[in-house]
Amino acid sequence: MLNRVNSILQQNCFLSSGKTLLVGVSGGPDSMCLLDVLVQLGYPLVVAHLNHGLRPESQSDAEFVEQIAKRAGLPVVIGKEDVSSYACIHSLSIEEAARNLRYRFLFQQAELVQAQAVVVAHNADDQVETVLMHFLRGAGMAGLRGMQYLTLPSPWCDHIPLVRPLLEIWREEILAYLKDRKINSIHDQTNLDTSIFRNRLRHELIPYLADFNPGIRRVIWRMAQVLSADYDVIEANLDAAWEECLVEQGQGYVSFRAPALFIQPEGIKRHLMRRGISWLLPGLRDIDSSTVERALGFIEHSTRSRRLDLAAGMYLLREADLLWLASWQADLPVSDWPQLAADDGCSEGLFLPAPGSVCLVDDWQIHAESLVLDETIEKPALGNPDPFQIWIDAAQLHMPLTVRCRQPGDRFKPLGMAGKTMKVSDFMINMKIPARARANWPLVFSADTLVWIPGMRMAHACQISNSTQQVVHLRMLRNTPEPDYSSRQ
Amino acid sequence: MLNRVNSILQQNCFLSSGKTLLVGVSGGPDSMCLLDVLVQLGYPLVVAHLNHGLRPESQSDAEFVEQIAKRAGLPVVIGKEDVSSYACIHSLSIEEAARNLRYRFLFQQAELVQAQAVVVAHNADDQVETVLMHFLRGAGMAGLRGMQYLTLPSPWCDHIPLVRPLLEIWREEILAYLKDRKINSIHDQTNLDTSIFRNRLRHELIPYLADFNPGIRRVIWRMAQVLSADYDVIEANLDAAWEECLVEQGQGYVSFRAPALFIQPEGIKRHLMRRGISWLLPGLRDIDSSTVERALGFIEHSTRSRRLDLAAGMYLLREADLLWLASWQADLPVSDWPQLAADDGCSEGLFLPAPGSVCLVDDWQIHAESLVLDETIEKPALGNPDPFQIWIDAAQLHMPLTVRCRQPGDRFKPLGMAGKTMKVSDFMINMKIPARARANWPLVFSADTLVWIPGMRMAHACQISNSTQQVVHLRMLRNTPEPDYSSRQ
Repeated sequence: MLNRVNSILQQNCFLSSGKTLLVGVSGGPDSMCLLDVLVQLGYPLVVAHLNHGLRPESQSDAEFVEQIAKRAGLPVVIGKEDVSSYACIHSLSIEEAARNLRYRFLFQQAELVQAQAVVVAHNADDQVETVLMHFLRGAGMAGLRGMQYLTLPSPWCDHIPLVRPLLEIWREEILAYLKDRKINSIHDQTNLDTSIFRNRLRHELIPYLADFNPGIRRVIWRMAQVLSADYDVIEANLDAAWEECLVEQGQGYVSFRAPALFIQPEGIKRHLMRRGISWLLPGLRDIDSSTVERALGFIEHSTRSRRLDLAAGMYLLREADLLWLASWQADLPVSDWPQLAADDGCSEGLFLPAPGSVCLVDDWQIHAESLVLDETIEKPALGNPDPFQIWIDAAQLHMPLTVRCRQPGDRFKPLGMAGKTMKVSDFMINMKIPARARANWPLVFSADTLVWIPGMRMAHACQISNSTQQVVHLRMLRNTPEPDYSSRQ
Repeated sequence: MLNRVNSILQQNCFLSSGKTLLVGVSGGPDSMCLLDVLVQLGYPLVVAHLNHGLRPESQSDAEFVEQIAKRAGLPVVIGKEDVSSYACIHSLSIEEAARNLRYRFLFQQAELVQAQAVVVAHNADDQVETVLMHFLRGAGMAGLRGMQYLTLPSPWCDHIPLVRPLLEIWREEILAYLKDRKINSIHDQTNLDTSIFRNRLRHELIPYLADFNPGIRRVIWRMAQVLSADYDVIEANLDAAWEECLVEQGQGYVSFRAPALFIQPEGIKRHLMRRGISWLLPGLRDIDSSTVERALGFIEHSTRSRRLDLAAGMYLLREADLLWLASWQADLPVSDWPQLAADDGCSEGLFLPAPGSVCLVDDWQIHAESLVLDETIEKPALGNPDPFQIWIDAAQLHMPLTVRCRQPGDRFKPLGMAGKTMKVSDFMINMKIPARARANWPLVFSADTLVWIPGMRMAHACQISNSTQQVVHLRMLRNTPEPDYSSRQ
């Protein structure tokens, strides 16, 4: 037993023998065995026990653990929490609430004593029950692979690992060890209560399944091991895909490059959504699989600029080549688009003399310059192929130009559409300007005529003709470098 | 129903609507439904039924299917096999034997009519039972993902796909469809026989599991879908790793570049072994997981030149940087090593005059040349750093030299070992010459003294000294280029 556990501690949990471990001890057989093994292996230990206050014996259990630790000369810390009211407040089952509070407590203590890891005593039977539980509830690989020898980050801590060195030791072996070493432990009567789902698995389902395959526990345990290694492969693919598809990750949102996301294999798309969702809702233990499937359906079939409400206030938003996964509370960043400050743009707008410029939000600017049309201007530029700068016929303009946001009823005759008049809002939709960027998009007017939608298209009437002598050169630019998506994670 | 099945046929099974399908019809509800749906969808069909001869009604079932097909104006072919004796001969369960014979028959017929696919009627409930069966028997992802809409290659055919368009239709839906369309079907009484494992799952285990989760069937079905997509990701990784690690794949053997194999993630190593094993034993349906784990353990811990017997006559053999997975019947290729033809090398051996040469197997040769030691021979070469050519002192030699295989008792004083005498067999082991290459490895003798083990080391006594005037230059070379592992797949 000592050798097996020590090999797991060193090879699978990567622990060093000289550094403190915080060991969670309920006083039950598993944790009493774990404690004894760790003491024998000579690890520096701090014993921690959380009194859940759920059973009449809770207090005496805590005292039992305290006594054991003191007798062994180990530092011990006993915590107490009101599990029932925590469960009530967070609408959790009692088991789930106890689990959350217990791990929170263990990691708080681990932090205090600068432990290298929190060690808990889940055994091979617990592993089988966990896998079965996930199986019955419909988990993917992440669930079917069961618990891991080492978990980092865990939902409770991102820098201290949670380790489970007894995962390959069966309950029988633990009991035999305790008997052999004459170690007492607490027998928790609630373990027999089959109204608790896990206990029903232990006492009813697993014996029933053994009728179909007497080796069922080993079979399921082995399956978890195999799937765990497979999951590592998937996870490596996921990491690469995440890097490839991610544009930005912020408080309450993640955005992906939609074209990069679409070409991922279905399995990877699903894992990307799961990882995104757990970024938004880190406390969430199980993501409802139907939510994930709805997200996947949206990705497969979404045309541009659509939105899908998911669950728990999350939604997916497709904007041109971006796919946002966000919480309703989150302010999605708009800094990549040219925007007039809300105060500046509406109603009258800002004057744009030539030469002169107008400042927009986030270092965007519009510049105007007046030029005599001569050979120094390269001919191709006069066809205005660049949506960020145009040369237009000054004779058609009322100077100074003004820059303002769109107003209801604004219309526009875009270049290249044979003089057709369109609503500005329709044109913006056609140009895939995201809805939330449209209201403050800067528009350049000459009196009441829309001359240019910067970044998009100029007006048909402002084209340079053979008789043009004077031109106005308009440019929209940003002082910071263009965003480089690849380095923005 | 029609739309759902048609969408599966086109989008998941990639079938074209104008080309013949061979549809397997037992006459039971599932296949009667499938047949009707395919007829309505207008696919050209050939109906096939195999009479397993297992039940008293077998003959009348066959007649029922024949009648139905004829009435619908469809070509029909009825086959008959003796399942019981096939099961006996191949030591298979009756179900397994029936399955093998049925698919063999269906694909034979599909070949004859040049069908684009064999279509079978497995439904969503069958899928759930299949997944549960794999779960109970301890399968990996390949089993837990269940049956696929499209399987190609299958164990029965490498160019005609096996398709299952009803995989998402539940048994209730099929029965309702038949009732609605007033279609009769055969009710196979053996479906109620719970001594058959699958029937026990259907009639006992699944209802029992529904106590734990009423949606258990959908949960398991969905799990299979999700794992199937994950498996595709793993499989893409496996394909890449297979290409990276494979050296050679022949009748009864596969060889891997051991260093490339060792650095694969554990999950990929396991799948590489599984793929290798199914290359050796293509008929094998389930590879025993303990066999795979033993193989994995060997890979993790094998030092050079070791062998592990696996199961079913398979073994793993580590030879220097090669790892062989082979059947005992297979002759592993030896063409990369210099070898004397069995007839040539033993007893007397072959004369090697200088100048002169000796031919070995597979274009290897040994050449000898006599030279006066002068400035044209570069000094560094006289230190004999190249194991494939040496310059030795002619005065120490009895000419002509002879080339033969080792014989019991052969001993050798290798250069650089201070005149120490070793058994030739020990020296070969130290030099990592694979066991099966040792017996016919060419050795160059001067009378009874071993002068050179070509490719390895010359004898200490033959070194050139300051007084050397005449040298013999020995070379071993191959007329074909050195094997390039990367292009030998």
